[in-house]
Amino acid sequence: VSVVVLAGGTGGARLARGMLDVVGPQNLVVVANTGDDVEIYGAHVSPDPDLVAFWLADLIDERGWGLEGDTFMVMDGLRALGVEVWFNLGDRDLALGIERLRRLREGQGLVAAHAELMDRLGVPGRVLAMSEDPVRTHVRAAGRWWPLQEFLIGRRGEGPIEGVRFDGADHARPAAEVLEAIGDAEAIVIGPSNPIISIGPILALPGMREALAGAGAPVVAVSPVVGGEIVKGPTAACMQWAGQECSAQGVAAVYEGVIDGIVADEPVQGLPVLQTGTLMSDAASRRMLADETLAFARALASR
Amino acid sequence: VSVVVLAGGTGGARLARGMLDVVGPQNLVVVANTGDDVEIYGAHVSPDPDLVAFWLADLIDERGWGLEGDTFMVMDGLRALGVEVWFNLGDRDLALGIERLRRLREGQGLVAAHAELMDRLGVPGRVLAMSEDPVRTHVRAAGRWWPLQEFLIGRRGEGPIEGVRFDGADHARPAAEVLEAIGDAEAIVIGPSNPIISIGPILALPGMREALAGAGAPVVAVSPVVGGEIVKGPTAACMQWAGQECSAQGVAAVYEGVIDGIVADEPVQGLPVLQTGTLMSDAASRRMLADETLAFARALASR
Repeated sequence: VSVVVLAGGTGGARLARGMLDVVGPQNLVVVANTGDDVEIYGAHVSPDPDLVAFWLADLIDERGWGLEGDTFMVMDGLRALGVEVWFNLGDRDLALGIERLRRLREGQGLVAAHAELMDRLGVPGRVLAMSEDPVRTHVRAAGRWWPLQEFLIGRRGEGPIEGVRFDGADHARPAAEVLEAIGDAEAIVIGPSNPIISIGPILALPGMREALAGAGAPVVAVSPVVGGEIVKGPTAACMQWAGQECSAQGVAAVYEGVIDGIVADEPVQGLPVLQTGTLMSDAASRRMLADETLAFARALASR
Repeated sequence: VSVVVLAGGTGGARLARGMLDVVGPQNLVVVANTGDDVEIYGAHVSPDPDLVAFWLADLIDERGWGLEGDTFMVMDGLRALGVEVWFNLGDRDLALGIERLRRLREGQGLVAAHAELMDRLGVPGRVLAMSEDPVRTHVRAAGRWWPLQEFLIGRRGEGPIEGVRFDGADHARPAAEVLEAIGDAEAIVIGPSNPIISIGPILALPGMREALAGAGAPVVAVSPVVGGEIVKGPTAACMQWAGQECSAQGVAAVYEGVIDGIVADEPVQGLPVLQTGTLMSDAASRRMLADETLAFARALASR
């Protein structure tokens, strides 16, 4: 077996962690959104790929981001110098980003830089940056364009959202390793991340929708709408901007032409649905949802 | 009064600290060598100006470099990623360098970036980067050229030295604030730093020797040779490369045409000498040496 999970932040990362339990490290490839990447503090910070990696390695801190037990000495040092620290980053997290930027400056590709650093961290499974090429998500709100991290942190992700763009996506290409993994996959799962700003940048890469549609494997999405609500992040405002209702039905509409089925805790019309509980509150529920999702995909494949 | 101290690393920094006690923060300007500067870890690290600043602010750690009580979480994080950490830097020190590089990248000049950050650290007196322009000292040993920090750390400063060059110095200019301070000074003191690789880059700036020779103030050097020995660093190997003996006499020869007198604990021929103890082992001896040096300079001025 070989399962590819497309992931943004927390929802996708949790599902990937469950899938790791189900299929094992040799059979899991996570394709992570790099549209949130930001260069700051002399570091290349990759929030989504790193979040997935920290989840896979059981290194995620209980605060929900960053490395477990990390310290914040450099941020304290910056504050002491009068810097307004809007983007908080732990010391070991910063070391990761500093070393990544050094590698990129030396000419190493983003996929290889991520992969080697994840190896050093002992991350099981493969986490692939979606593209070697830079893509930078921007959100328009309150009359101005915000780089995504600034929107999420500085503006706390508050809508209404007036625009979304993925700078660089037009000329970016899916990484070769990503296309290869999609071609070889037994199942492809779109994790329960924000369809517009987390999965959106992956799907916006030229050739990506075609690669997914043309893959031999079934493609299933897991809805991020749980009990009619969004667990985390500005998904509701994003769906509103996209002209879709914030429901599994709306999510299915965003993914139309890409997915063969959807996993949700509510009914969806017009495509195969696995209706099941989708809240991932602990290891058992993460594993359970991953297991059910994979079985659903396999069932779709055998039809 | 207004005293200008030219300084490299530890020796110059200690004397500057003593001079601060003697003349007070309003009357002290330290011109610091930036030939040791290095870009590393996404930071602009300025070893000599920072060492002086940390000494002036009583923030120097007892290990002899870096900020008192600083932690090393990021370096630990880099090592955990397999990085060979040849240049050790504390977390708050790193924050300083990260913020400095950010300012430089945004277009702020080196002198202003230093000055504002020193202000934030609460450093008394003024520490001026010698030039707005980059100068990078390289030392040749064992058949290859070493950037200075790599020579000092990777090679532990071991000679014999086969060459010294100050990349960029030909086109660098002394900072306007430096020339102004020299013009306004009552006394100019060359601190007991390495004459070749610490003070050398300052004197190599086009117009600097002329500015010192043409200043109304007397220029006196404090010999770094104490009890016939060098307290710290590769001064002996540097003097040998320069074809000078490692003595106050040799130091006077290196500074010929620039200084009006020398402070040393041994006899020197051919120019006015203040022979006195020059070991600065504590606050009292630093203040004493600074006080005597200033009195000597004043006596030279009144001749």
